[in-house]
Amino acid sequence: MSIGVGIIGAGVMGADHARIIARQVAGAHLVAISDADEDRARAIAAETGAKRAVNDPLGVIADPEVGAVLIASPDSTHADFTIACIRAGKPVLCEKPLAPTAAEGMRVIDAELSAGLRLVQLGFMRRFDPGYTEMKGLLESGRYGEALAFHCVHRNATAPAYFDSVAAIVNSCVHEVDIARHVLSAELSSVRVFRAKKSKLAHFDDPMLVVFETDKGQLVDVELFLNAQYGYDVKGELICETGTISFGPALNTEVRSSGVTATGLAADWRPRFSAAYRIQNQAWIESITGGSPVGSSAWDGYVATTVTDAGVRSLKTGETVAIAYEKRPLLYT
Amino acid sequence: MSIGVGIIGAGVMGADHARIIARQVAGAHLVAISDADEDRARAIAAETGAKRAVNDPLGVIADPEVGAVLIASPDSTHADFTIACIRAGKPVLCEKPLAPTAAEGMRVIDAELSAGLRLVQLGFMRRFDPGYTEMKGLLESGRYGEALAFHCVHRNATAPAYFDSVAAIVNSCVHEVDIARHVLSAELSSVRVFRAKKSKLAHFDDPMLVVFETDKGQLVDVELFLNAQYGYDVKGELICETGTISFGPALNTEVRSSGVTATGLAADWRPRFSAAYRIQNQAWIESITGGSPVGSSAWDGYVATTVTDAGVRSLKTGETVAIAYEKRPLLYT
Amino acid sequence: MSIGVGIIGAGVMGADHARIIARQVAGAHLVAISDADEDRARAIAAETGAKRAVNDPLGVIADPEVGAVLIASPDSTHADFTIACIRAGKPVLCEKPLAPTAAEGMRVIDAELSAGLRLVQLGFMRRFDPGYTEMKGLLESGRYGEALAFHCVHRNATAPAYFDSVAAIVNSCVHEVDIARHVLSAELSSVRVFRAKKSKLAHFDDPMLVVFETDKGQLVDVELFLNAQYGYDVKGELICETGTISFGPALNTEVRSSGVTATGLAADWRPRFSAAYRIQNQAWIESITGGSPVGSSAWDGYVATTVTDAGVRSLKTGETVAIAYEKRPLLYT
Amino acid sequence: MSIGVGIIGAGVMGADHARIIARQVAGAHLVAISDADEDRARAIAAETGAKRAVNDPLGVIADPEVGAVLIASPDSTHADFTIACIRAGKPVLCEKPLAPTAAEGMRVIDAELSAGLRLVQLGFMRRFDPGYTEMKGLLESGRYGEALAFHCVHRNATAPAYFDSVAAIVNSCVHEVDIARHVLSAELSSVRVFRAKKSKLAHFDDPMLVVFETDKGQLVDVELFLNAQYGYDVKGELICETGTISFGPALNTEVRSSGVTATGLAADWRPRFSAAYRIQNQAWIESITGGSPVGSSAWDGYVATTVTDAGVRSLKTGETVAIAYEKRPLLYT
Repeated sequence: MSIGVGIIGAGVMGADHARIIARQVAGAHLVAISDADEDRARAIAAETGAKRAVNDPLGVIADPEVGAVLIASPDSTHADFTIACIRAGKPVLCEKPLAPTAAEGMRVIDAELSAGLRLVQLGFMRRFDPGYTEMKGLLESGRYGEALAFHCVHRNATAPAYFDSVAAIVNSCVHEVDIARHVLSAELSSVRVFRAKKSKLAHFDDPMLVVFETDKGQLVDVELFLNAQYGYDVKGELICETGTISFGPALNTEVRSSGVTATGLAADWRPRFSAAYRIQNQAWIESITGGSPVGSSAWDGYVATTVTDAGVRSLKTGETVAIAYEKRPLLYT
Repeated sequence: MSIGVGIIGAGVMGADHARIIARQVAGAHLVAISDADEDRARAIAAETGAKRAVNDPLGVIADPEVGAVLIASPDSTHADFTIACIRAGKPVLCEKPLAPTAAEGMRVIDAELSAGLRLVQLGFMRRFDPGYTEMKGLLESGRYGEALAFHCVHRNATAPAYFDSVAAIVNSCVHEVDIARHVLSAELSSVRVFRAKKSKLAHFDDPMLVVFETDKGQLVDVELFLNAQYGYDVKGELICETGTISFGPALNTEVRSSGVTATGLAADWRPRFSAAYRIQNQAWIESITGGSPVGSSAWDGYVATTVTDAGVRSLKTGETVAIAYEKRPLLYT
Repeated sequence: MSIGVGIIGAGVMGADHARIIARQVAGAHLVAISDADEDRARAIAAETGAKRAVNDPLGVIADPEVGAVLIASPDSTHADFTIACIRAGKPVLCEKPLAPTAAEGMRVIDAELSAGLRLVQLGFMRRFDPGYTEMKGLLESGRYGEALAFHCVHRNATAPAYFDSVAAIVNSCVHEVDIARHVLSAELSSVRVFRAKKSKLAHFDDPMLVVFETDKGQLVDVELFLNAQYGYDVKGELICETGTISFGPALNTEVRSSGVTATGLAADWRPRFSAAYRIQNQAWIESITGGSPVGSSAWDGYVATTVTDAGVRSLKTGETVAIAYEKRPLLYT
Repeated sequence: MSIGVGIIGAGVMGADHARIIARQVAGAHLVAISDADEDRARAIAAETGAKRAVNDPLGVIADPEVGAVLIASPDSTHADFTIACIRAGKPVLCEKPLAPTAAEGMRVIDAELSAGLRLVQLGFMRRFDPGYTEMKGLLESGRYGEALAFHCVHRNATAPAYFDSVAAIVNSCVHEVDIARHVLSAELSSVRVFRAKKSKLAHFDDPMLVVFETDKGQLVDVELFLNAQYGYDVKGELICETGTISFGPALNTEVRSSGVTATGLAADWRPRFSAAYRIQNQAWIESITGGSPVGSSAWDGYVATTVTDAGVRSLKTGETVAIAYEKRPLLYT
């Protein structure tokens, strides 16, 4: 039995998702692709063999052949389309963020609570990355005692022109927020943002260091450097009581030439996390058949936004900011 | 459009293939699984959602819902089942080896020649491994000049009881034979087998060093060590005119504990080459729709067997053995 | 011309220094070793060929055959013995710390100012470590732009019983303080100490994260983990505008066994920094002949203590503490 | 007590040795430096503080202040100067090779036999390299069982114009011959040279693969590639019964920039083996005081030449060549 997938948004991420569903995921087929630019939708549909290309996101959600919806449209539309999917009773994989504010994220949660079941998976793909998965497994093996601190590094070659220091927290650091909660099985209780010396090649405060404390007393420090020039680089090192667990870029080949031994780095997050995206989308499809949601929930999306909101306050005040959350509904426990 | 796949053989490899087709490959679904042990076929069918479990390999090939056949039955049956697939006009992915002898391999080739088209892909999965793929791509970029020599290492933790020195050449070294030809785009013209000091933990000549020359004058040396105890390990280093290209195990995490920095090694070839198997099977399915065969052909299977036959002669005589091939039919150029 | 060296203190460090001078350093020979435990002095003198073993530190300083003094006696005696050397006009290499408090450090500086020349080198050996040296050289090459942030990790297998959180700052973090100033050519202007989740295997707050800002706006973050169990580990990663420069343990061999690829880690700082100690002591001897002091000065010792004093205040208050220094005398510019 | 050293030859290697003795070695001082180009000798003497610069090698050997002689003059003079040292009863560290032919090497051995004691250390510095030392120590720990095979790689950026295929065996491979014997505590009993595809950037057969068998049945394979362009690179991997031990370049720093993670490689053997040279020269000086010779002996020099003579025969015939040795005199057991 193959699940018909509808994709809303045929930009870079939507196109990638269409390709992944069409060429790398078992048990699914593409039914419809919608984009405000219908030509773009048509091109991706032609490339991936999707049946229909439209400019009608709600029509995709309503389409009786569409059994599950993947949302990769502009951020500001995520919450509304997700709520429409919930009302239609259709499982949905929504690219992060769930919503621009914590309050709006609560609207999605309310919709799921009304529906009485979880239909939303949020596209925090790192939860499916083999490096993080192995790290979490090793931590949970208990072999190295408890986790005490977690060093994270998040670097991009260059940030888009519309990025600023707030976006660095809200759009980039949010990935570390979600994955740190996931790896540590802990909640973040405070945040303090430090500005480093600003790179002359950056148009905002870059790099920064963000220090979180968890409700277990652990520290999570995150280097954000979005104009690092040299490439995309995500690293993590977990400090446990009797050992440390780290991962870096997964390497295929090493070249010795021109006086150095060198291994290539990904240009951006898409090649770096290609395995994570594939595994995420496959797990999503399987979770639909299997009935148990996987990955980040709407609640996780709300929490992530709440944390980054606090991070933005710390960025502005230079103070440590305590983080408070709504009470977690039973549906998400 | 989804291709119905029939699997012949539900042993370790057949079961793995069934799981890959069912859970990791787009555009395919499992129709039938056949095994001499019908209970085993039934268990795998239940696990993977295949429609039918039978003890009837020819019935699977004839099954009108089966559009493509994957052969993972005992080695001695490969040639006959493959020929049956060719006669039925069905694409077939056959686990290596194609046939126990070069002469028998020629029977498969003759069947394809009679059919007038290529239907056979041989399961030399390394051609799809990201490490080898990247290595070949870097070589063909021309950036490092021409390839001059290729160092290969092939180690298993322990060899099965029925293995002997001949099996080390025929069953293990054959992978390096195929991948070296593929990476170098060259043919092997001679072979010389050296016995190392025999490990006390081995029940045959182990390790060995096999030195090939190619028709371009390149050297390919292969360390075979099938009772290396510590794990499964495959390495390659390509020596080019201005640089070297190598790969080793793809790493996810690194642990520092008990006085060492350590990264885990695979226990056997299945986790080590899990990406290769997935990509191979996906490429096979796509090649059926697309119409262009990929991977190793029946001819490649014949060549590999011809080379290992010569390797066995060198093992027995201690001499360098020149390798002669039949004329390559036009179908394989 | 060979310089006669007198060593004060024949404990672990004094004995190591005696061995280094006797067996690894050109242009020097051991004249006298003094220790409160004269037997211990005698044993080390016998082992290293030093002429005299005594329990008379001031006698060593006064000894006409002693051209230079190396102080490795208990920390509380460092300042007094160093001042005695200055008064005797003899070059002195003093193990860190220069003095327990910044105020007492100023007494040494006053003595040098009175003498009108620099005679003191402080034993911050990391300035001679090939890793840090190469890092500083690469930074100063300008190839990667300016340094923006510096991640440091300092781990010991286990801390001595007498250690506490204050000692972690004063005795361990002080190494990062000196080396960060050296690598960055910058002064530290503020410090904020964060406690991580306390390891059950530690008897004080351990690990901690210390975040410094420099007068150039750079961030320096230091993980201190003195009961890391698995070994001694010092790492550094410098974040520059167009690249990062890092070093880890210098590796000699890699072993593959029992399912892992492993490289050994040093048990403590002495094997880890054996090259640094050798190069430091050689540079000290050469600087005596050459006339230009090298390495950390008494002023650097005063600064380091001033910084760790501020760190201790942050540890106690949980606040960011600004760091103020005396005016730097001309002698140290 | 400091040993007065005389150096014969002030070319690249002699100058390096003078600097090492003057600046990095305890217990020695430079007395005299001789070179056919007396200006060159004078320049090095000025730089290193040697007392005398001369063009009089025999005068250096006879000099009563010279307690030990280091020979770094042209290869063809090694045997005669070494014999002169033996006759003068002076310890000598002679750069390899001992002699151009095995027969001439025997003359040196005869001189030592006549003297009745060992005075010659041959400059096979790799025996003092930390990587090989650690490898040998791990092998001899018995933890990984017996050594079965040894893979060696020897690459230079470019070979001098006067090099040819014979020189590759005689001058380069000879290092692997000595170190393999040392690490394995075994003698080489046969050799087979394979030519790889010739690099267009090489003016002789380059690269080559040399396969040795030892008297314990082990295989030693050596890749020689003397025009590898990218840098100087020496690697070794020892295959034992339950694990492998390898080493590569000792790394200090790693740089991430321009899309790659890179570590620098040495330009030639001098930086790569700087630790080995320093440790070798220190051990030589200590051995003179201590009375027990260390490192490679004249006999080892004879053996190395005998092996490379056989290698040259294999190069010319393409056959496996068995290696026969004179009977080892008691002095060398």
